[in-house]
Amino acid sequence: MDDLKPRPANSSPLTPLDFLERAATVYGDCPSIIYSNTTYTWSQTYRRCLQLASSLSSYGVSPGHVVSAVAANIPPMYEVHFAVPFTGAILNNVNTRLDARTVSILLQHSESKLALVDHQFSSLVLEAISLFPSNINPPRLILITDDDYASSPTVDSNFCCTYEGLVEKGDPNFKWVRPQSEWDPMILNYTSGTTSAPKGVVHCHRGIFTITVGSLIDWSVPKQPVYLWTLPMFHANGWSYPWGMAAVGGTNICLRKFDASIIYAMIKRHGVTHMCGAPIPNKEPLRNPVHILTAGAPPPAAILSRTESLGFIVSHGYGLTETAGLVVSCAWKHQWDVLPATERAQLKSRQGVKIVGFTEIDVVNSESGESVKRDGLALGEIVLRGGCVMLGYLKDPVGSGKCMSDDGWFYTGDVGVMHADGYIEIKDRSKDVIISGGENLSSVEVEAVLYMNPAVNEAAVVARPDEYWGETPCAFISLKAELKKRPSEKEIMEFCRARLPHYMVPKTVVFKDELPKTSTGKIKKFMLREIAKAMGSSRVSRM
Amino acid sequence: MDDLKPRPANSSPLTPLDFLERAATVYGDCPSIIYSNTTYTWSQTYRRCLQLASSLSSYGVSPGHVVSAVAANIPPMYEVHFAVPFTGAILNNVNTRLDARTVSILLQHSESKLALVDHQFSSLVLEAISLFPSNINPPRLILITDDDYASSPTVDSNFCCTYEGLVEKGDPNFKWVRPQSEWDPMILNYTSGTTSAPKGVVHCHRGIFTITVGSLIDWSVPKQPVYLWTLPMFHANGWSYPWGMAAVGGTNICLRKFDASIIYAMIKRHGVTHMCGAPIPNKEPLRNPVHILTAGAPPPAAILSRTESLGFIVSHGYGLTETAGLVVSCAWKHQWDVLPATERAQLKSRQGVKIVGFTEIDVVNSESGESVKRDGLALGEIVLRGGCVMLGYLKDPVGSGKCMSDDGWFYTGDVGVMHADGYIEIKDRSKDVIISGGENLSSVEVEAVLYMNPAVNEAAVVARPDEYWGETPCAFISLKAELKKRPSEKEIMEFCRARLPHYMVPKTVVFKDELPKTSTGKIKKFMLREIAKAMGSSRVSRM
Repeated sequence: MDDLKPRPANSSPLTPLDFLERAATVYGDCPSIIYSNTTYTWSQTYRRCLQLASSLSSYGVSPGHVVSAVAANIPPMYEVHFAVPFTGAILNNVNTRLDARTVSILLQHSESKLALVDHQFSSLVLEAISLFPSNINPPRLILITDDDYASSPTVDSNFCCTYEGLVEKGDPNFKWVRPQSEWDPMILNYTSGTTSAPKGVVHCHRGIFTITVGSLIDWSVPKQPVYLWTLPMFHANGWSYPWGMAAVGGTNICLRKFDASIIYAMIKRHGVTHMCGAPIPNKEPLRNPVHILTAGAPPPAAILSRTESLGFIVSHGYGLTETAGLVVSCAWKHQWDVLPATERAQLKSRQGVKIVGFTEIDVVNSESGESVKRDGLALGEIVLRGGCVMLGYLKDPVGSGKCMSDDGWFYTGDVGVMHADGYIEIKDRSKDVIISGGENLSSVEVEAVLYMNPAVNEAAVVARPDEYWGETPCAFISLKAELKKRPSEKEIMEFCRARLPHYMVPKTVVFKDELPKTSTGKIKKFMLREIAKAMGSSRVSRM
Repeated sequence: MDDLKPRPANSSPLTPLDFLERAATVYGDCPSIIYSNTTYTWSQTYRRCLQLASSLSSYGVSPGHVVSAVAANIPPMYEVHFAVPFTGAILNNVNTRLDARTVSILLQHSESKLALVDHQFSSLVLEAISLFPSNINPPRLILITDDDYASSPTVDSNFCCTYEGLVEKGDPNFKWVRPQSEWDPMILNYTSGTTSAPKGVVHCHRGIFTITVGSLIDWSVPKQPVYLWTLPMFHANGWSYPWGMAAVGGTNICLRKFDASIIYAMIKRHGVTHMCGAPIPNKEPLRNPVHILTAGAPPPAAILSRTESLGFIVSHGYGLTETAGLVVSCAWKHQWDVLPATERAQLKSRQGVKIVGFTEIDVVNSESGESVKRDGLALGEIVLRGGCVMLGYLKDPVGSGKCMSDDGWFYTGDVGVMHADGYIEIKDRSKDVIISGGENLSSVEVEAVLYMNPAVNEAAVVARPDEYWGETPCAFISLKAELKKRPSEKEIMEFCRARLPHYMVPKTVVFKDELPKTSTGKIKKFMLREIAKAMGSSRVSRM
């Protein structure tokens, strides 16, 4: 059988880019994108992407280059997911909530050749460019104007042209650049990173292909859904759904800004069937069911049951920027339908099982590498293996090697348990786990109890060194402003003692006016950890 | 970016075998297979497959070996799709409609180590084994008994044990053999082949993975469908749906034999939602819609509209054993719904566009290799490129090289046209095309006209050599038995002349009592071609 090897006819690189041409053939006259007063069809979107790719190429964008996009969920943001890789270049979406200093660092680190800038964020990007050292060439800037959003600024000398100008003058017969190999990089996403060094996650065509088809099957997405873009596309490429919508010929409802009332208006006006992100309850029930996919912290039971009673069908999953989308999802079982609401919410809050097409997930003891007991109690690190795990971090072979060792696992840094039925549940980030007297304890579980105290506004629990126990939990708390009586440290500890095992109760409580946070609103635990370390041993009495 | 290479964490081989363990976790208590009085759950099916794989391994079945299955659509036939590749071996399903001589040739050619034999076909296989030359070791035989089908025979000395015996004594904790590479062979299917040499199509894990996920997305298969097994699993592995059903946790309704009334009874009893094969109209409308996927010759307009009016939702596609399933499908457009029935049938009879995840299809001029005009008229060869194109033919590097040349296309040998809207339509097998006066003419189109004649029972049109025209169409016809008046050759020609361009009208008509056919019921055109050749030039007068 030695002649039975890959051949050109069967080994063409797996890539999601093929989906767009197919959508133009099958769904040519159907709406691809609706935004404010603009509607595009799939043949128009295909044509516009080819034209943009053609112009980018003529600007010198070539395979391996990085092109950045800094934009809200508007039509150009959708188009770049095809147009940029159509040139062979790598798409880098920038989180628009970052500060100028961070944006500057990311643009420098990625060596971005060109940035497509939504005019809402032009001052952010211009400030970021002004922070470039004089010996580093900043990217050329293209301005995305938007008549539906305030008046468009004139293109000043900072920008070489407008996005629409590029589209207009591009060649609709441009032959898009197929990847030489399915392992060629296609996407670069920076993780929000609560620590200092930027981590640029690189995904290849094969990875994006597998997350896209796996996600469609896992969520049972039918043909021609109506998809509401509330999840930012800069956030892990909207969990792969820009490509997924082309595969099934869906309608992308784009939105620059939104709140609950806008979401409900859009659902009504366009007959939305699918959306991703956090459920936003309202008073009004839906006319037709809307599928909503949510990830990260599961919605609390009350929110969940309220949302579901309005007509939302909530699915819950888990993924990381490093997996290009959700690779674990809480596959629902019919027999759970009859359970009481709180029990259902508890089951749904578990992250679940691998999606179809992903290879393997497990929860392992970080030291021995062995699977933890399937008892829903033993803490271990979540490890993953599958086609959509990133190629690695850009310019960081050490970082890549650390989380992907030769044993074939990607170490997520997330700590969880494996339930008896094979469903996993995340409990904490591994660096946030506190080891006290040989017991692993989840800081998130302690925080959850602290949040139950009506006086607590924000809470973060980290390890404080201890001579005897190794570490003990140390709680940083900001209290609510309008309190009549502020609780004491002791009262907080007693509150925890009534609700937690002894070893999990904070041995130190520190009140702060506000906890330090990153630009994306995450509490900077590493900074609190430094403070706790500087306090020295907690020297608690033996228990 | 040189360090951004495949690593063990992201390059685990793509394989559909992972789907079963996932089904056991997610759908453990739900029915996997229902057959007569037997119902299995997904955890039972997973367990049985592991046990069978364990026993096969202990019988010496190893990676790279071939294991054959000769069975109807009964539960063991489903199980072998996982259990055999779980050992690393290659599954070879045998067409049960073949004669013993052909089965013998295939078992010898594949060097099958072991054959799992449904007792309905035990005499067929025993006869095939008796035809082995004395210097060739036949496969060991395992008997599949079936209490629901007549009384089970006792295991005589021809068989080393029963299938159930293997399952029973296997280890449920067997660790299934992951492929070393996704290019490792997994499936061997012989094409029915109207010519002599056996063509053993070999598919790898990657190929089966991509056809399975692509087929699920293309047909929008939801979670937990109820799938009726009318399409034989030995026929290109039932177009990949054994693996597909595990991916979505469907219920497989197995059947040993069926007719229209059994099909309707099963649909009613089990709430069937999906099935593949030819639509079988009945008088009774369905209570719930049933999705039916059909391929090959499209159903005639009358059958199609009758079927759809009963509640079937018919999809039409195209594939070959060499593509492991349907890679082209007639993606339906909403705007076609309002057209008259005949027009809808005409649109639906086209084979369509590539499925999601397949790379490319085209219709090319076989000599120049250039795409034909997109006019629905210019004939060319259908060519394909994508992840589920076979590795090649077993022990036939020349044959593999012929249909997969270095230009990256798989040449199907099917002749068709490309319509202006990008949908392809098959017209004929390339070897059946007749070239008369420089014009390519499709024998299938001439046959279609002949079948419109109420006196015609069977018709086949082949090329007859001609001094002046090169070739002319020669029709072989069997007439219906109960005719009052048999038409003359001249009347047949006049019938065609009224309905076809001059050059397409048969210049020779030959009546036969019966046309020669293969064991699968296909007309042996190569034999008719020999007869036409032996007639010599048709020497028709110039037109």
